Amino acid sequence: MSFLIICPQRDPKAWVEAIQAYAPHMDVEVYPDVKDREKVEFVLSWRHPHGIFNKFPNLKVIASMGAGIDHIIEDPDIPEHIEITRVIDEQLTEDMAVFVLSLILNHLRNLSVHHCSIDWDPQHYKRPREVQVGIMGLGVLGTGVAEKLIRNNFNVTGWSRSKKEIPEVTTFHGEDQLQEFLIGSDVLVCLLPLTPETEDILNKPLFGQLPVGAYVINVARGHHLVEEDLLEMIGKGHLSGASLDVFRKEPLPEDHPFRKEDRIMITPHIASITHPRSVVPQVVDNYQRMKSGEDLKNKVSREKAY
Amino acid sequence: MSFLIICPQRDPKAWVEAIQAYAPHMDVEVYPDVKDREKVEFVLSWRHPHGIFNKFPNLKVIASMGAGIDHIIEDPDIPEHIEITRVIDEQLTEDMAVFVLSLILNHLRNLSVHHCSIDWDPQHYKRPREVQVGIMGLGVLGTGVAEKLIRNNFNVTGWSRSKKEIPEVTTFHGEDQLQEFLIGSDVLVCLLPLTPETEDILNKPLFGQLPVGAYVINVARGHHLVEEDLLEMIGKGHLSGASLDVFRKEPLPEDHPFRKEDRIMITPHIASITHPRSVVPQVVDNYQRMKSGEDLKNKVSREKAY
Repeated sequence: MSFLIICPQRDPKAWVEAIQAYAPHMDVEVYPDVKDREKVEFVLSWRHPHGIFNKFPNLKVIASMGAGIDHIIEDPDIPEHIEITRVIDEQLTEDMAVFVLSLILNHLRNLSVHHCSIDWDPQHYKRPREVQVGIMGLGVLGTGVAEKLIRNNFNVTGWSRSKKEIPEVTTFHGEDQLQEFLIGSDVLVCLLPLTPETEDILNKPLFGQLPVGAYVINVARGHHLVEEDLLEMIGKGHLSGASLDVFRKEPLPEDHPFRKEDRIMITPHIASITHPRSVVPQVVDNYQRMKSGEDLKNKVSREKAY
Repeated sequence: MSFLIICPQRDPKAWVEAIQAYAPHMDVEVYPDVKDREKVEFVLSWRHPHGIFNKFPNLKVIASMGAGIDHIIEDPDIPEHIEITRVIDEQLTEDMAVFVLSLILNHLRNLSVHHCSIDWDPQHYKRPREVQVGIMGLGVLGTGVAEKLIRNNFNVTGWSRSKKEIPEVTTFHGEDQLQEFLIGSDVLVCLLPLTPETEDILNKPLFGQLPVGAYVINVARGHHLVEEDLLEMIGKGHLSGASLDVFRKEPLPEDHPFRKEDRIMITPHIASITHPRSVVPQVVDNYQRMKSGEDLKNKVSREKAY
């Protein structure tokens, strides 16, 4: 029985070390160095080569290295019986919340605008209590962001697929309540999971329902956003700008039109970085649970993708 | 008896309107249109022409339009018996606290660094709980900033002239404890009043006591900072950078060397803007107190300058 790491685009070293520190007697292999494919029952994975999972006939669990599992389920060739887990990590949630707060404050206090200008031109600023932030996606990350913003005096609303309740947050759910949610959102934060339903959801019709001057923050996935629609709505002045941490193609190409638009703040997918030491215990615990036939933690519904 | 506004560098209109809205029957004059200099007992002032106060033989009170009174007491020709008041405004304090939080988060999450670069080069980020912020000056503003940072999980210390106690903040005071305060400050925030003692306090010897990689934020007065010393200590790599909202000369000249240093974030004195409507009630109340011989609120010690 073995534990396999598959992350061709990441250096697995810190993961192997963290696992060995937490569970010194565990056998860990790193793809493509696999002695016996039949022995692999558990894979810790990040952006695997599609189709690879079929080569492990006894595979039972695929554990994502991060909060998202879109990189796993976008592979159509994963047998139905395999369970998928994600990471739920307090530190990851806190980092995301601090990052979104940083972006919103940067916007409200016009820091980039002032820093990039040689004119002495104090801009009007808005205060947290004058601003309504609408969060799309009220999972662990969305809820963490909402709580951080509430503690900093923002008005916060949220929208999710199914009904959610969060103290001091006005929540909306489902297609029917999307418009009501959007018309009040001065700042829109996307923290949705990426699914066929949410792909391209940040598009021109949606932006059109936001109030004039609204600001858009995407810290979920690049494929949530229709890039041309964002540029068009900023160009027209309907949106005041955007902060984007994720892109359809990463790294963002040097000649991408986003780079020529001062009103778009670009960061290189840094909202929150999974720390192997912080995450390994829950992954190894799930491995032990699988071995002893217990129910796994942080299992994901493939249909909902969270 | 009359109430006079002297603010040659600001438009007095909003102030006159706010006073008339709050106290409709009050006589308000705006310098230089003064009918009878002998009748002036109360002046609301911002950056007055030096020597002007001697021209009002019955002047009793000079009220600053803002939190600082350095612009008043730097005039050596103010008769001793005249009382000076400042503004203490919750909104002003909250705005300052939000602004300092914005600057610190911008620094921790490298927003400007990433935004200004076309490379896809995720920088290491620090979390609030890993950072110690040292606040110089623990008056109303410094205390407000400390509380906001504590609520956002920062470690906060403070230094002031005389001993102060603030919950969850480690405080230092006096010359003797300055070094101990500085050596632990990853981020240094200056919120001191400007006095002969604090002028030029942000200088090379002080920066040298900060840990390597420390970051400096000045939101107090331009004359607290020795500009060449900051540039030198950033150039050497001892300081990682600075955020400056105030300058020895404002507007900051277009060809100022600060503008060529990417590691210095420049904002045009926007930390907190005094709102006439929010401030006028306390000023008019002090005017009434003077008329009825009561003790004034928010009086300032000229010696301490706060």
